[in-house]
Parts: sequence; structure tokens; C-alpha cells
Amino acid sequence: MTVQRDLPRKQLEQFERMFYPRSIVVAGASTDERKMGSRWVAGLLGSGYKGELYPVNPGGGELLKLPIYRRLTEIPGPVDLVVCCVPRDRVLDLLDDCAAKRIGAIYFFTAGFRETGDPKWMAVEEEMARRARAGGFRIIGPNCIGVSCPEHRIPYGPSTMVNTAGASGFISQSGGHAGKMAALSLTRGIGFSKVASIGNCCDLGSADFLEYLGQDPKTQAVGMYLEGPRDSARLIEVMGQVTPRKPVFVWKGGRTAAGARAASSHTGALAASASVWSAALRQAGAVEVNGLDELADTLLLYQAVGRQERANLGIICGLTDGGGGEAVLSADACAAQGIDVVPFTDRTRRELLGLLGQVGSVLVNPVDVSQRSGDMDVFERTFELVAAEPGVDLIVVYENVDLLVTFVGQPVCHMMNDVVARAGQKHGKPVIVVSPPGAVDRERLEVEARLTAAGTAVFPSMERAAKAIANVRRHCRRTK
Amino acid sequence: MTVQRDLPRKQLEQFERMFYPRSIVVAGASTDERKMGSRWVAGLLGSGYKGELYPVNPGGGELLKLPIYRRLTEIPGPVDLVVCCVPRDRVLDLLDDCAAKRIGAIYFFTAGFRETGDPKWMAVEEEMARRARAGGFRIIGPNCIGVSCPEHRIPYGPSTMVNTAGASGFISQSGGHAGKMAALSLTRGIGFSKVASIGNCCDLGSADFLEYLGQDPKTQAVGMYLEGPRDSARLIEVMGQVTPRKPVFVWKGGRTAAGARAASSHTGALAASASVWSAALRQAGAVEVNGLDELADTLLLYQAVGRQERANLGIICGLTDGGGGEAVLSADACAAQGIDVVPFTDRTRRELLGLLGQVGSVLVNPVDVSQRSGDMDVFERTFELVAAEPGVDLIVVYENVDLLVTFVGQPVCHMMNDVVARAGQKHGKPVIVVSPPGAVDRERLEVEARLTAAGTAVFPSMERAAKAIANVRRHCRRTK
Repeated sequence: MTVQRDLPRKQLEQFERMFYPRSIVVAGASTDERKMGSRWVAGLLGSGYKGELYPVNPGGGELLKLPIYRRLTEIPGPVDLVVCCVPRDRVLDLLDDCAAKRIGAIYFFTAGFRETGDPKWMAVEEEMARRARAGGFRIIGPNCIGVSCPEHRIPYGPSTMVNTAGASGFISQSGGHAGKMAALSLTRGIGFSKVASIGNCCDLGSADFLEYLGQDPKTQAVGMYLEGPRDSARLIEVMGQVTPRKPVFVWKGGRTAAGARAASSHTGALAASASVWSAALRQAGAVEVNGLDELADTLLLYQAVGRQERANLGIICGLTDGGGGEAVLSADACAAQGIDVVPFTDRTRRELLGLLGQVGSVLVNPVDVSQRSGDMDVFERTFELVAAEPGVDLIVVYENVDLLVTFVGQPVCHMMNDVVARAGQKHGKPVIVVSPPGAVDRERLEVEARLTAAGTAVFPSMERAAKAIANVRRHCRRTK
Repeated sequence: MTVQRDLPRKQLEQFERMFYPRSIVVAGASTDERKMGSRWVAGLLGSGYKGELYPVNPGGGELLKLPIYRRLTEIPGPVDLVVCCVPRDRVLDLLDDCAAKRIGAIYFFTAGFRETGDPKWMAVEEEMARRARAGGFRIIGPNCIGVSCPEHRIPYGPSTMVNTAGASGFISQSGGHAGKMAALSLTRGIGFSKVASIGNCCDLGSADFLEYLGQDPKTQAVGMYLEGPRDSARLIEVMGQVTPRKPVFVWKGGRTAAGARAASSHTGALAASASVWSAALRQAGAVEVNGLDELADTLLLYQAVGRQERANLGIICGLTDGGGGEAVLSADACAAQGIDVVPFTDRTRRELLGLLGQVGSVLVNPVDVSQRSGDMDVFERTFELVAAEPGVDLIVVYENVDLLVTFVGQPVCHMMNDVVARAGQKHGKPVIVVSPPGAVDRERLEVEARLTAAGTAVFPSMERAAKAIANVRRHCRRTK
């Protein structure tokens, strides 16, 4: 097992000032509320952030009842974090003021540097990093959306909406993907400790952020989206130190020639062979995932069920009808990921037979409860039986909201989901729900919102749930 | 090329009476509106079905203002189709009445025959088939939900909701999967000519239905869900006759040991090796898909774009922001399916540079339009340029509704989608939309409903769109 190096105290403090700032400056906010910088101020005002907030613009004036300072250096109190939305030709002057003000860190929404391939702007980016080093503060980006810390009510980007707070960290070379993850955090209940859109990484790189999240006691798992970080060698080294204690799930963008071409225009990333990346990630104990949905699914599953080395499933389906096909597809989807759906013991099967009857039933695992649809006692007893099976580590409920709403109606549907939401705690085995889209999608969203609020993880297909389970198990087996 | 045998006239007529019945009997409907048979009657009353409708039950009485006949033979007019919901111990008597009444076909929602493995009920199922043959009519099922014909306002199952009418046929060994497909048909606009849940296939089998759909002029593509049809040899033979003219997309359930175990309880299907099935399907010119979502995506894509032998994509992303990451993921997802995202010609790239600027743009293909977000002229001109590219066969718009609604607002979002919906016809190249879930899912459902109503196919992820494109292309390449 690799020994974890402690992050130097000074660097740790810099990250704490960045994620838990007592004061934030938005440079480039103005009296025009529609401007991007002004939206950032509006977001922080509405998010519940409790610290000081200072708009800065040479034009002065007032924004949302806050005075606009003409220069950073005119602000009376100390400044921990600066959000930069000024045009690219003015960033160097701003950095001098940042040094004079002894800020902690600055992130640059401003773009148009290295990723353009233009030597002039590439040189400016290098000069930015130089000035930050000389000034004793850190840069996030440029060409990024910056950092979010839900616990500290720092939203992601210029928005009042704060991600669900929780124990996953996310480091992303795409601001857009981090934003989409923030959106999924809200609807799917994926809790985040910290999110960082790292952009071009002229100063702080992917390895720095991972090193910090590796030590952060609030972070239990890390997701990463990488295109081609410049600090890849150090990243892999840091990853090797973090993964024995916390899972790191990595989605590598630009794996293909076409993807790498796009990545080069996006963050100026240089392509490395996809297979080299896969080998290095594996060596470092990380688990590679493919796409944002799979990353979100995997973080959600880890949050819901924790370590799962075996992860054999007990599956309950056919909550109204159609359980036969659901049983087959569930078993197939699991087996395709190497996940066992072990037949129930004879005793349990006999009990299920008595409970559900023979006609139209599948009793073997998956169990199809459709013949007694809507009977809460039978439903609860089925849970007890499945949870008591020694071969079952994790219970999956396959729920077709279309049929539930049509046949048993919304009130009974909600009663069944109350049973589902309670079952995990009651029986001591984690329970997740698969709820595929269909005809009554508004009702489905409501069911999912209720389950999510009750702490039950919901997946849109068995294939996706099975993939997430396999990813979590992969981490657990590598780090036994 | 295989020569297509014509279906015998008598058999063709039987199928026409089944899918276009002038009169339907629901055996087992009763005065209790909550009973399954009664729901079937309610469904047909509310669906817009124009033919005669007769509930039958030995108890007599009235249901929803319709007189309930005590016996099938008491009905005055001719009967084309019977829906059977009576208990399994009464089906043989009903079949004798069917023969006397010279019906066309009967389908059995009633279950509990061969799939139970009980010799007694297996024998009853065999006797059912014998009586149908002797009586000159056909059986669908038992253990099925029966047939639907949207054009004739025959809903799927006991429901008033009729699938979107269109040119796809679906043959399913799972009633539940056919129901889910019917649900997706409504929300995603996948048009169906005929849907058949075929159950245990004691008489009509998967090959019979495929033979009919192969000749049906209303059907342009066929989807199938198979567990283990008893007529597999003939099915493969018929498939070989159909695929040179119409694509057949097959999802095989029970491919794995666990799945096969569930399938055996579900429809009594015997497992055959998954690789044998794959080889046979390939030989017959069918395209194998994996799961209901993939089947729905593939039928929708074929409906939207038709034959695509090359299927090179032009991708427009970043409708508000975050286009960089979207460009990388789109290109990667396509390349993973062997779909080319060819760089635009220099001329187009120069025009795009003038249109969108350098800072924050990806111009190579995918093109990221975020720098001029909300500018309809730029958006329309980008479409023109992409559509004019000789290397582009199909245009994909990657649309993040979260950001659209937050930054440009719903009215502008709808304006942009009006451009998208018109673009396909205007530029003579098909356009599809990728719209991933996120934070504003109700607004997203509305956007998708509007696009769907305008005839634009919408997919929830680039990975799924790319898979569907690859499946359609596979069919086209096999049948050049």
C-alpha cells in the first residue's frame, strides 16, 4: 500500500480559502444585471452564501444593492477568492491587484488563451501563472467555471442553485460536464463535497485537486473528467496514493481520433493513446468509466451502497404486470456485467410460491410479484424473504411507473414506494430502484423525486444500474 | 436475394381479421368495472375503436351501457376477434363456442399453461391449439396481452391509449416489453403499424407474425423481442426472406444463464446458446440489438432517417455553453460505434470562424456555437453550412435544456427548436436531437414533446443515438 504524503500546510490552507471563502470578489460584474459577471453576483446572493461579496468594475456604480468597487485594491476587507469575468486583455493587471491584496485564489471564466493555439495568448497564459506564483496565490483555469462547495453554499457557476451536499468530489476538465453533473446532483440526489472545473490548468492542475480531495475528510469518493491534463504523470502518482482509501472513477474524454481533435480545440489537450491511459489508470487503482451518465450512476451507487465486493443481487420486479420480461432483462443485464443473480434457496422459493401463487409468477430470482400487485403485506413479506437470503447483498426493485399509475393508481404507487424507501434500513441490506422512462414521465419524475428525497437511489435502466454496480465492485476488489 | 413466398390468401385474411376486426368480444368482462376483462372493454370504448364490441360473461348484466352476453354463441352479428380473460379452467369450453361462431382469432390474456411446467396445464395448452385448428381459427398466446393496431384504433392491452400510428411492427414474447414499447411510442413518437404480444405461441408463432408483417404494406421495419420461440428454425427462414426488403431488429432475451432461467419461468422458453442465436440472426440478415431502449432508439432512428449506408455525422453543440465537453463526448461516442465525424472542409471552417469567432469555439466538427448563443441568424447559418458539407449525411443537434432554459430562457429555447425542427426539410438532410436529462426535466419533457410532435427524433444521450445509427447502418450495409 502506497504511503500517502500529507499536503503541505500552506497548500491545504490555499484550498480551504478557495472552497470555504470568507469573502468573494467578482471582477467584471457591472451595473448591467444581464452581464455574466453580474449573474455570478446574483447567484451568490441567492444561493445562501454567508460571506462577504464584492463586485468590482472600473465603471463603479451599484449592482443588486451592492456597491461596485472600481479596483480590487479598494476593497476594505480581506479577499479569499476572486471570480474573473473580465476580457482577456485585462487579466494581467487584475493579477497584479490580486497579489497586492494577498488573495487566496482566482478562477478565470475568461477564456481565449492556450486553447486557441495562438502564440500571443499562450504566452499571456504563461505570464498569468508566473504572476500568481510570484504573488503567492493560486489560479484555477483559465477557461473554466471554477469551484463549488455545496456545504458552504457556493453554487456551481453563475446560478443560485447549489448542488446537493454530500461526499463525492468531482474534478472536470470540462466546465459543461461539471455543470451537467451539478444538474444531475439536484435531480438524482448525488451529494457533492466539492466540484472543480479546472479548465486549462495554467497553475493548479488535476493532480493538485485530487491530492486535496484525497485528504479532504468531507470527500469519500472522487469522480474525474479528463481530456489531456498537462500534469498526467503526477496525476497518476497521486491517484495511486488516493485509491487505496477512496475510489477514483475516471471518464477520459478524447479517447478516439475525432474526440481528441475536439479536445484539442476545447482545452488545448494533447492526445495520448487511449490504451496507455487505460493501463495507467488501472495501475493507479482507478476505475475507468465511459460517459457522464455512467460516472453519475457510479457515484450515486457508491453513495447509496458503499463498498460491495460481492454485490450479488436480489431482484423484485413486476410491481403491477409485465414482470416476466422484466425478470429476463434484469437477469441478462446483470450477467452481462458479471453480476450474479443467484437462485433463491428452496425454502424461500416455497414461501414465495405460497405468497404469490404459481400462475404468471417467476419465483427463482428475480421474483415477479405481479400476481399480488398492490397487496402491501405481500410486498413487505417479499422484501423480508429476499433480504433474508444469505446470497443477496443488494436488493433491486424494478418499477414500471407507467403500469403502476395506470393499474394501481398514484396513491397505491406512493404507498409501495414508501415500503421500498423503508426497506433498506429495515432489513439491513441496501435497496435501489430501477425506473425506466415511458408514457407517464411527469408522474415518474415525481416518484423518483420522492424516492430520492427518502435517500433511495434511482436508475433509469437495469443496464445502467448493473454497470454502476460492476464499477463499484471493481474498485472494492482492487483495494481489498 | 431470397424469393419471398406469398402468404396464402386464407392466412392473410386471418391476420387482417385479427388486426382490423369489425367486431371484438371480450370474454370474461363483467358488471364489475374493476375486473381485467371489464377494463379491456373500457379501453376499447375509449380508444376510438369504431367496430362492434360485445362483453361476454355467464352472469349476464350490463357493463358501461353495453349488454353482457351470457355466451359467445348468443351474439347476433359475426365476430372477428375474441379477447379472453376467463379463468384457465374454462378456456376449452370457450374455444368450442369460438368454433361454432366461426371467429377469426382469439387471444388469451389468461395464463398458467405451459409456462408453469405442470403437465396438466401443458396438456390443456396443446388441446387449445388442437381445437383452434379443428375450428378454423387462430390463437394468439396464451399468456399474452394480444394485438394492437393503432391505425384501426386498437389499443395495446386494457387501455384507452393507442400507440402512435406509423410504419414499425413489433412482435414480442413479453407482454410487458410490448407495453413498455407502446408507452415509448407515445412519448417518443415511434409510429407502429402493428404490435403483437405472442406469449406461449401454442398456435401462431413468431414466424407467422413476421411473415405477415413482411408482406404488410403498412410495415416498413420490424422489431422483435424473443426469449426462445418454439418455431425458431422457421423464424430464421422467414427472416431471411424479409430482411432484404425490410430491416428486422431483434432483441434476444435470456442470453445468459440467469436470464434463461427467468425466461423458462416466464414463457417456458428453452434456452439455446446465445452465440448460436447471434450467428443465425446474422445469417438471416437481422440486426441484433441489446435491450428495449436500444430497440426503441433503432426503430425511431430508422423512422426518422431511413436507409443510411454511410451515416457520417455533422454535429452542432454548445447551444448555450459547455459546447467543448459536448463536442468531445459526441465525437468519442460516435467513434466508439465506428461512425465518422469527418472534419469540415477548410472553406466551411473559415466561414464558421467568421460566424462564431475563435475564442471558446470548436469549429472542426462537432461545431460549438455557444459563443453566439441565442442568435437565430447565426444558428440558421450554421445549419446551412453543416448541411452543405458533402461529407455530412445526417445532422445531430446536441441540446442541453438545463442551460438553454437557464441562460436564454424558454421562449428563445423554443425558437431555436423551431429552427431545428424545420432544418431537416429545409436543407434536405435529416436532423436528430440529443437531449440529456438534468435539472429542469419538466421543461426538457416539454421541449422533447414539441420536437417529437414536429417529427424530429430525440435521443437521451449521444451514446444511444450513435448505437441506433450504427444498427441502421448495419442493416443497410448487409442489404445493399
